[in-house]
Amino acid sequence: MADRLILTLAILGGTGKQGRGLAYRWAKAGYHVIVGSRTPKKAYQAAEQLNQRLDRQLVEGMGNEQAAEACDIAVLSVPYSFQQETLASVKHQLDGKVLIAVTNPLNRQDIYAVHMPPAGSAAQEAQELLGKGTKVLTAFQNVSHEHLQHDGPVACDVLVCGDDPGAKEQVLQLVAAAGLVGWDAGPLRNAVVVEGLSPILFGINKRYKIKASGIRITGEQAPG
Amino acid sequence: MADRLILTLAILGGTGKQGRGLAYRWAKAGYHVIVGSRTPKKAYQAAEQLNQRLDRQLVEGMGNEQAAEACDIAVLSVPYSFQQETLASVKHQLDGKVLIAVTNPLNRQDIYAVHMPPAGSAAQEAQELLGKGTKVLTAFQNVSHEHLQHDGPVACDVLVCGDDPGAKEQVLQLVAAAGLVGWDAGPLRNAVVVEGLSPILFGINKRYKIKASGIRITGEQAPG
Repeated sequence: MADRLILTLAILGGTGKQGRGLAYRWAKAGYHVIVGSRTPKKAYQAAEQLNQRLDRQLVEGMGNEQAAEACDIAVLSVPYSFQQETLASVKHQLDGKVLIAVTNPLNRQDIYAVHMPPAGSAAQEAQELLGKGTKVLTAFQNVSHEHLQHDGPVACDVLVCGDDPGAKEQVLQLVAAAGLVGWDAGPLRNAVVVEGLSPILFGINKRYKIKASGIRITGEQAPG
Repeated sequence: MADRLILTLAILGGTGKQGRGLAYRWAKAGYHVIVGSRTPKKAYQAAEQLNQRLDRQLVEGMGNEQAAEACDIAVLSVPYSFQQETLASVKHQLDGKVLIAVTNPLNRQDIYAVHMPPAGSAAQEAQELLGKGTKVLTAFQNVSHEHLQHDGPVACDVLVCGDDPGAKEQVLQLVAAAGLVGWDAGPLRNAVVVEGLSPILFGINKRYKIKASGIRITGEQAPG
């Protein structure tokens, strides 16, 4: 994988707003991007729209299984309620690859409170579902799609959790390529905090009338 | 409580660096502050030092039990390993009052990873230990003591979790009085995220050579 000049990224569930925003930013940065969907026709349409916007042919549309097969690194950008079904459909294709989980395990009856699945977080659940052959990491859970669909800098940092240092370095590079500031936020078990920040930010949006709140890490690097 | 002109704050375990920093900032803002300690002599000494720095007599030192009895609002600023013992010693005194839990449940063998007690968070555990008579909220877990012991603005926002709206409003006022920016971060069960941010920030300090990283909430308030 590291030998290829251009990585191929597949965004599973990539026809949603966040998936399309990530596809746009990565295609613009020169990556080969596949938008995946359960419904291939929706994926073709989303890819076509993105290519029109980019005025180039950088994005392909495929069914999720085919997209997972063709990619080097996959991004899971489906609503949490579809996570299990989607991962079951691409488990073989993702063996030996990296999966970036963007999923937020929201409770639709109580969306401003933190509710995690028994595995500890959606990302840890994804790791259990896929098995040890796939390296699961997390990123972008707190970034509103509204930040991704323009070209400017994004006022929300990205906390990256995962257990494999090499894969984490790749994900941090993808965060930077998308124009965001990423931070190594420790092991995959820390995903509970990053996923749990999303309902907190949704609550802040509502209570303080903010359109798309986010977080920044503050602090000054020591000289040297 | 709301009828008193000046609230009395007790900082249980207030002789540590974070407790002293909070005591300093609140005393400077005009609150009557009690520094509590298991060892009353240490509390007298800390209070004396703070009064010398303030050049006034605004801070008292007491044993934790006496401090909890005398206060309107208590702050729990002990290492997590002392939380249970400290709360058992002041349970009666805190009945009917507000407790602000600052505790971070760190695992000393693995301080960059999130480890929560069975209750879900240290704050939820404190609520279980104290019973429904005490309103437990959380604040300041992510603020390094280094930010509190000077007089300037602090580059770390404070996420306040709790289930009682009136108590939350009081805590947000205390955050502002200490010179920090506070945000209503939802119910007490969300404390897992705020407490869990601390090991993530410790990891960021180490990996990126930052002295005392923190977080800021970003986003623009909608007009009107």
